[in-house]
Amino acid sequence: MERIKPRTLSGFMELLPADQAKMERFMETLRRSYALYGFTALDTPIIESSEVLLAKGGGETEKQIYRFTKGDSDLALRFDLTVPLAKYVALNYGSLAFPFRRYQIGKVYRGERAQRGRFREFYQADIDIIGDGKLDITSEAEIPSIIYRTFTALGLRRFVIRVNNRKILNGFYAMQGLSERAGDIMRTVDKLDKIGPEKVRELLIGEEIAIPAGAADEILRFISIRGTNAEVLAALEGYRGKNELFDAGLDELRAVTAYLPEFGVPEANFAVDLTIARGLDYYTGTVYETALLDHPEIGSICSGGRYDNLAEYYTDKALPGVGISIGLTRLFYVLQEQGMLSDELVTAPADVLVIPMTDTLSFAVQTATTLRNAGVRTQLYTEQKKFKAKMSYADKLGFPFVLLIGEDEIAQGKVSLKDMHTGAQTLLTPDEAAAAVRAALAQKENVRVIRE
Amino acid sequence: MERIKPRTLSGFMELLPADQAKMERFMETLRRSYALYGFTALDTPIIESSEVLLAKGGGETEKQIYRFTKGDSDLALRFDLTVPLAKYVALNYGSLAFPFRRYQIGKVYRGERAQRGRFREFYQADIDIIGDGKLDITSEAEIPSIIYRTFTALGLRRFVIRVNNRKILNGFYAMQGLSERAGDIMRTVDKLDKIGPEKVRELLIGEEIAIPAGAADEILRFISIRGTNAEVLAALEGYRGKNELFDAGLDELRAVTAYLPEFGVPEANFAVDLTIARGLDYYTGTVYETALLDHPEIGSICSGGRYDNLAEYYTDKALPGVGISIGLTRLFYVLQEQGMLSDELVTAPADVLVIPMTDTLSFAVQTATTLRNAGVRTQLYTEQKKFKAKMSYADKLGFPFVLLIGEDEIAQGKVSLKDMHTGAQTLLTPDEAAAAVRAALAQKENVRVIRE
Repeated sequence: MERIKPRTLSGFMELLPADQAKMERFMETLRRSYALYGFTALDTPIIESSEVLLAKGGGETEKQIYRFTKGDSDLALRFDLTVPLAKYVALNYGSLAFPFRRYQIGKVYRGERAQRGRFREFYQADIDIIGDGKLDITSEAEIPSIIYRTFTALGLRRFVIRVNNRKILNGFYAMQGLSERAGDIMRTVDKLDKIGPEKVRELLIGEEIAIPAGAADEILRFISIRGTNAEVLAALEGYRGKNELFDAGLDELRAVTAYLPEFGVPEANFAVDLTIARGLDYYTGTVYETALLDHPEIGSICSGGRYDNLAEYYTDKALPGVGISIGLTRLFYVLQEQGMLSDELVTAPADVLVIPMTDTLSFAVQTATTLRNAGVRTQLYTEQKKFKAKMSYADKLGFPFVLLIGEDEIAQGKVSLKDMHTGAQTLLTPDEAAAAVRAALAQKENVRVIRE
Repeated sequence: MERIKPRTLSGFMELLPADQAKMERFMETLRRSYALYGFTALDTPIIESSEVLLAKGGGETEKQIYRFTKGDSDLALRFDLTVPLAKYVALNYGSLAFPFRRYQIGKVYRGERAQRGRFREFYQADIDIIGDGKLDITSEAEIPSIIYRTFTALGLRRFVIRVNNRKILNGFYAMQGLSERAGDIMRTVDKLDKIGPEKVRELLIGEEIAIPAGAADEILRFISIRGTNAEVLAALEGYRGKNELFDAGLDELRAVTAYLPEFGVPEANFAVDLTIARGLDYYTGTVYETALLDHPEIGSICSGGRYDNLAEYYTDKALPGVGISIGLTRLFYVLQEQGMLSDELVTAPADVLVIPMTDTLSFAVQTATTLRNAGVRTQLYTEQKKFKAKMSYADKLGFPFVLLIGEDEIAQGKVSLKDMHTGAQTLLTPDEAAAAVRAALAQKENVRVIRE
């Protein structure tokens, strides 16, 4: 038979079982954390009509899109989870209750240049709160609190959620008479971390943006405001009274920073940062980025913000909202690269491997059934191999426990429970073995997928 | 602004939140059940190279495939989870430990004719056990036991897993000297339920298949063997000694039926059924179908079997296996149509809706944080609406509990917990409220997603 060489497309993540087990834990942690805050799960198709998906049109994204025809239909694969959400809310407006809070963890597709750590198929994990006409400011404080709990549940500690408000930025640029160039300026200021203040100043006064040197200095002075949240807010008060939008933004930022501790976020994990702008034009209020303190080179691992019109391309209903997105596949890849995924997590297919050492398997099968009835994840090994091969299988997959069943055990109606970590072996009834495994695993329940 | 009419492609399931909550529970039940038996999770790309995906080539499936080019690449969307599994095992053969047990729940794509209840994007939920060269017969008994537990956990009771063995069928046809036409005969016999024995006989002796009338009668006699599992096995013993393959198949069927009760499957939920053949040529041993006793018109809701060569198109390694697949999207659709999804399941985004009735929100936010810290799924309602609108939101989404926080409550540092089912209202501290909700929900833990 002619054989085809098996391969997986480049830019498509496909993990080996132990890593996949960590990824599964990752996603389960996200689902649980989002559910704790009252978000409903959503699952939209991966394929949409191109007309619908590209309603907004244009931009860099369009070139990267997987688009094709099937029969008469012009189809495309979703490139984010926001456009499908907008479609969903516009389509089901009459059936939904607002605020509508949904999470979605799903694959999206972008035909990026193949490159190490860049993915063409990747998971995004999004949460959004959509209001009908209005949405209270508390939601803008709640979103980062969810991210705080999620990352903490994953095991991260040294991270900071950076918060800013687009109204403050737009108001400030309006004060300087630079409203029309605010977009260009923000995109330039966004490079501050990478190229430094000197280069930013050069670009601002250079040919393309061409703002007066005095204004450039004023901008650099503004974005260099640093300190505790209280200090930054105090400095911002110095600009109050000159522009309504600015003042509104400052009030919002004050409200968000005041609510954050009540939502359970420690002061150490959030920071007002005037350099955060977010590239997308549709953010209109609070904006977020999240950085790992020990790995600034990774950039933001979770970003989002407040927008005024989720679905303007589909409906005339005003649907303001706030949302945030984790690029799950890339984050997982980076954590793996940095050696930040825990080795303590059980990645075996089960917690117990039952190894029969006799030809008759009935007692082993019954024992496996007893363990499963007690809720213990149990695999039965029934291949006819030497004892050594069976144990090496258990070792290779990392089962925490092995249950050995030989003739002696069967005669006594008992099993030998071997702790693969300590090597200790105990003779127990199947029920006792199930209880012992459950007790041992309960102690490991707090193992987090990320170690820091 | 010119608006695009929002729509979802026909043949693509997109559920409203309450139904999606049921689907999520459905999938979570599957994941837990599979994990209990020691299956590792797998996640392969939705897009593969066409060359790899269509290695087997030909057939009805190829016409339905979503295939397109991106740059220089000829790509296709997976149409099942078996081909990607074969690719994965061949590709990672050296890194895997065998038997390799994996489950995968994922979307697959087939451009079927659009029709009510037919889906172009649908979930399959597959489990497979792959051996390296050999695989013990116990796996063929374990697979239906997993299906039994899974369906039971979902809430189904009146279902039967029908078991047969291809060696028995092939051996029987060999006895009749009909080996070469065994495929045609089995495909015809497969229609027995739909067209009845008379029609089957007509087709068998008709122009196309053209077997002698005596042989047709023999076949009909064979497949009409009915009774308890013991009775059917006893009747099959009457054919023993005439064909080696038949005898081997009978031994396997005896082993499988003997192990099934030890794996915890009650006699009422499995049946030896000689009419089960499964269309696919690659099954070589035990085969399964699963029927809802009260809805035979639905057909098999879960099918599979034993095969000898998982990955022959990619590798010369012999990789025998056994697997079974649930067509999740179709099953969910059918259960929904039949009114078999439970209404008792909480489909609200959270278990508690915190409703502040004052302008200051601090105590409400802190209370929500307390509840979440105690593991209670809590949503905070902070929109400035009339009390009636807030309660109608709680009603519409079906929150089991509402926490009311007015000035009286704040003054006492307490909250009013309202049970939305009974209407009872109790004044409690936030900690007490969390405990009360947890206790109430613990009682509902056994609610199944399917009611029968």
